[in-house]
Amino acid sequence: MEFSAQQIADFLEGEVVGNPHVMVSNLSKIDESVKDTLTFLSNPKYTHFVYNTKASIILVNKDFFPEQPISSTLIKVEDAYQALAKLLHLVDSSKKQQSGIDSLSFISSSAHIGENAYIGAFSFIGDNAEIGDNAQIYPQTYIGNNVIIGNNVTIYPGAKIYADCVIGHRCVIHSGVVIGADGFGFAPNDNGGYDKIAQIGNVALEDDVEVGANTTIDRATMGSTYIRKGVKLDNLIQVAHNVEIGENSVLAAQTGIAGSVKIGENCMFGGQVGISGHLSIGNNVKLAAQSGVISNIPHDSTYMGAPSMPYVQYTKAYVIFRKLPELAKSIDTLKKEIEELRKIIH
Amino acid sequence: MEFSAQQIADFLEGEVVGNPHVMVSNLSKIDESVKDTLTFLSNPKYTHFVYNTKASIILVNKDFFPEQPISSTLIKVEDAYQALAKLLHLVDSSKKQQSGIDSLSFISSSAHIGENAYIGAFSFIGDNAEIGDNAQIYPQTYIGNNVIIGNNVTIYPGAKIYADCVIGHRCVIHSGVVIGADGFGFAPNDNGGYDKIAQIGNVALEDDVEVGANTTIDRATMGSTYIRKGVKLDNLIQVAHNVEIGENSVLAAQTGIAGSVKIGENCMFGGQVGISGHLSIGNNVKLAAQSGVISNIPHDSTYMGAPSMPYVQYTKAYVIFRKLPELAKSIDTLKKEIEELRKIIH
Amino acid sequence: MEFSAQQIADFLEGEVVGNPHVMVSNLSKIDESVKDTLTFLSNPKYTHFVYNTKASIILVNKDFFPEQPISSTLIKVEDAYQALAKLLHLVDSSKKQQSGIDSLSFISSSAHIGENAYIGAFSFIGDNAEIGDNAQIYPQTYIGNNVIIGNNVTIYPGAKIYADCVIGHRCVIHSGVVIGADGFGFAPNDNGGYDKIAQIGNVALEDDVEVGANTTIDRATMGSTYIRKGVKLDNLIQVAHNVEIGENSVLAAQTGIAGSVKIGENCMFGGQVGISGHLSIGNNVKLAAQSGVISNIPHDSTYMGAPSMPYVQYTKAYVIFRKLPELAKSIDTLKKEIEELRKIIH
Repeated sequence: MEFSAQQIADFLEGEVVGNPHVMVSNLSKIDESVKDTLTFLSNPKYTHFVYNTKASIILVNKDFFPEQPISSTLIKVEDAYQALAKLLHLVDSSKKQQSGIDSLSFISSSAHIGENAYIGAFSFIGDNAEIGDNAQIYPQTYIGNNVIIGNNVTIYPGAKIYADCVIGHRCVIHSGVVIGADGFGFAPNDNGGYDKIAQIGNVALEDDVEVGANTTIDRATMGSTYIRKGVKLDNLIQVAHNVEIGENSVLAAQTGIAGSVKIGENCMFGGQVGISGHLSIGNNVKLAAQSGVISNIPHDSTYMGAPSMPYVQYTKAYVIFRKLPELAKSIDTLKKEIEELRKIIH
Repeated sequence: MEFSAQQIADFLEGEVVGNPHVMVSNLSKIDESVKDTLTFLSNPKYTHFVYNTKASIILVNKDFFPEQPISSTLIKVEDAYQALAKLLHLVDSSKKQQSGIDSLSFISSSAHIGENAYIGAFSFIGDNAEIGDNAQIYPQTYIGNNVIIGNNVTIYPGAKIYADCVIGHRCVIHSGVVIGADGFGFAPNDNGGYDKIAQIGNVALEDDVEVGANTTIDRATMGSTYIRKGVKLDNLIQVAHNVEIGENSVLAAQTGIAGSVKIGENCMFGGQVGISGHLSIGNNVKLAAQSGVISNIPHDSTYMGAPSMPYVQYTKAYVIFRKLPELAKSIDTLKKEIEELRKIIH
Repeated sequence: MEFSAQQIADFLEGEVVGNPHVMVSNLSKIDESVKDTLTFLSNPKYTHFVYNTKASIILVNKDFFPEQPISSTLIKVEDAYQALAKLLHLVDSSKKQQSGIDSLSFISSSAHIGENAYIGAFSFIGDNAEIGDNAQIYPQTYIGNNVIIGNNVTIYPGAKIYADCVIGHRCVIHSGVVIGADGFGFAPNDNGGYDKIAQIGNVALEDDVEVGANTTIDRATMGSTYIRKGVKLDNLIQVAHNVEIGENSVLAAQTGIAGSVKIGENCMFGGQVGISGHLSIGNNVKLAAQSGVISNIPHDSTYMGAPSMPYVQYTKAYVIFRKLPELAKSIDTLKKEIEELRKIIH
């Protein structure tokens, strides 16, 4: 698949500066650019790469004017990064969708499969499960009894969805994800051990949720663990039973949310964050990577540290932490000076 | 499946206050309660929900007396939380057990499958493997050669158990768990790289162990990695080679235990704890979430922080950490005051 | 399989001290040694175990001379640990390799399978995939379209490799690993939510890479996520899109590397380390467990803490951190003393 600079400019409603007939067959990053590809300049930090890139075409913002001669053809657009996202989407959607139900899959006779769905080899669809239209269920996936899956959902190879869970429209679930395993609930018994508390609830993902590889979302003890509309979860995240994550919140990899935590809308958490059980996190909360949250956090705040505190407070304290040995030395010096003064006075 | 308040009270040996004929078909949490369900009040913090819940029945401790009129029927029991656990168990066990060996599974001719076991579609049972009675082996599970699995074990879809491992009676292993992958052992070679140290040991889970989704337990270099009776592991935990976790210890999600660590009995670890290699952790040790342990910990102690220290010491130090900027300012002020005093004296 | 002390000594080019005819059938650790096994002494800390071990043979360094009578036979070698590694390798390689293509697997008609490869039951090999010679592809594995896998690669049950990824020779990939899932890239849209940025790159593992159980390596947005020759990744690690990990670097479990980070050669990271996006980490860098890296790190340095700093600086600061309450008290005392001096002077 090849396109000329002119064809791409037309698609992006941009303007060609240079040879409009040059052809490209792929995209590349400007710092590792490759022949016969299109690259882009969005971050000014990378401007110097423009002058000796091997890429045939460079997508730039329309206010970019080179200060040296450039051998590549430029395509000038309103916003180079947005234009790139459009091209990425174009390339991606040109891959052929799979379809049909593989004869090596297992589908319960009571399951219902939507129009135009793909069910890959070695996938298992349980009793009374409902799979929406245009679903892409890759090989080796497990869809338990009574699971409901919306339209246009993609489930990558080997994801596991336990019985009774609900997945909204247009969700994307990556390989190794486990949705609906038992919440971690045990009660001490008289023998010094623990009895399991049965977990009879489920997990409900609303529309447009993406779940990264090997992330786990536990079913509720009763009721549902809720992942609201538009939430994006990265890889290897743990979401415990009865958690609720509010609309459009975005959590980076390896974050862990303990049981019954309620997270607001439009939050952004860095990687490896931990939140203790039963807490309430407001809307628009930002948490720095590795934050350890042990108390409620109000709306619109940014926290850091373990135990976490407001970002500015943490960074100010940490600046001093780095100098603690000097601080301790200062105190020793002061002690001596006071001692000397005292001797002089007495 | 519907039950009346009177039927439930009889099952729980409780007393009905209100309409004994009201029917419920499910359970719900008191703060999100739903019509035609039974809910419960255990934590006094939630008492105010009692007066306007939609639930038809509320399970309460027998010493609870409402201070306002209540439209729901009450069932009074000795311990509302324990009674709830009984009901959860009842609902859960009413789900039908699977049975039979699916024709789409692969079972080695030298494997032995116990009475009344279920082996799901696309599961693989290796040579000389032994599966106990009443085992529930869900689809897409891998049971390697020579693996021994006890009676009444449940293995959820897609768990992987490498060759030679041993699983005790009544264990529960969730989806995505990997038991018996190679320990992380390499020796530097003369080319600046590493040679793999072969890992010829196994993993041994004793009875009544539960392993959460996507947790990994590595096989020993030699001998066994031991998970003792009654241990409960949450999701996404890493247990390295030659670790031993003592009876009835409970580890929360995303905790990592490095090689050859020995953990005592009845320990409780919060989430995201890390323990360095070759350490010894006593019995009844509690570790706060995100603790980073780099030295041995004596019996009966509670630790926190990274590197971890006794809980009280850590929290006291952290209180001052929060105020470090003020502390630094105080020291500057003292310096100036001493300087002034010195000038006066001289 | 049994061997005599003399046979083992001959294989290791060592010397027998004691009965050369004693037979062993397995290896064991010296602190949990078992009858009819061979054990070893490498770390002098364990010397006292030598005098009452049940093991029939003990592998020791040639400069070891017992100070008490020993009932076991000794085999003296140049380096007991290296000799042990040889024996472990011998035992391990005596396990029979699997071979042949299982009739219960799915292999695309356009895929190419190398000589002497094993493809296990319920494995899926996509269109145009190439599997090298002597590959061991265990059951339930997913190899996407266009994936290229080198010679002598082992892929354990249930690993998932998305389309277009490349795996070098002699790589070992454990169960639950996900290679090539989408990088975590989203752009805010006008509705307060996020649009997915398509991820059209791949993951490239060079030769001799080992990837631990349930580790995830995301595909690049464009170009490749690179895992260079000889890299060893432990379990449950997250490697984000467009990361590059340099030759022979070794990362312990549960470490997370954010997008576009470049890691040098011969690095060693402890467990649960986190590195923020777009950073550059030099060659020969060591990071203590749980380090949180938020700025570039120069070659040949050792860092610790979160945010991380040079190891010595961190440990010195942390020593004072532990004593912060005393420090605060000292400052209070100084304040009072200065107040008294001032009173005396005025």
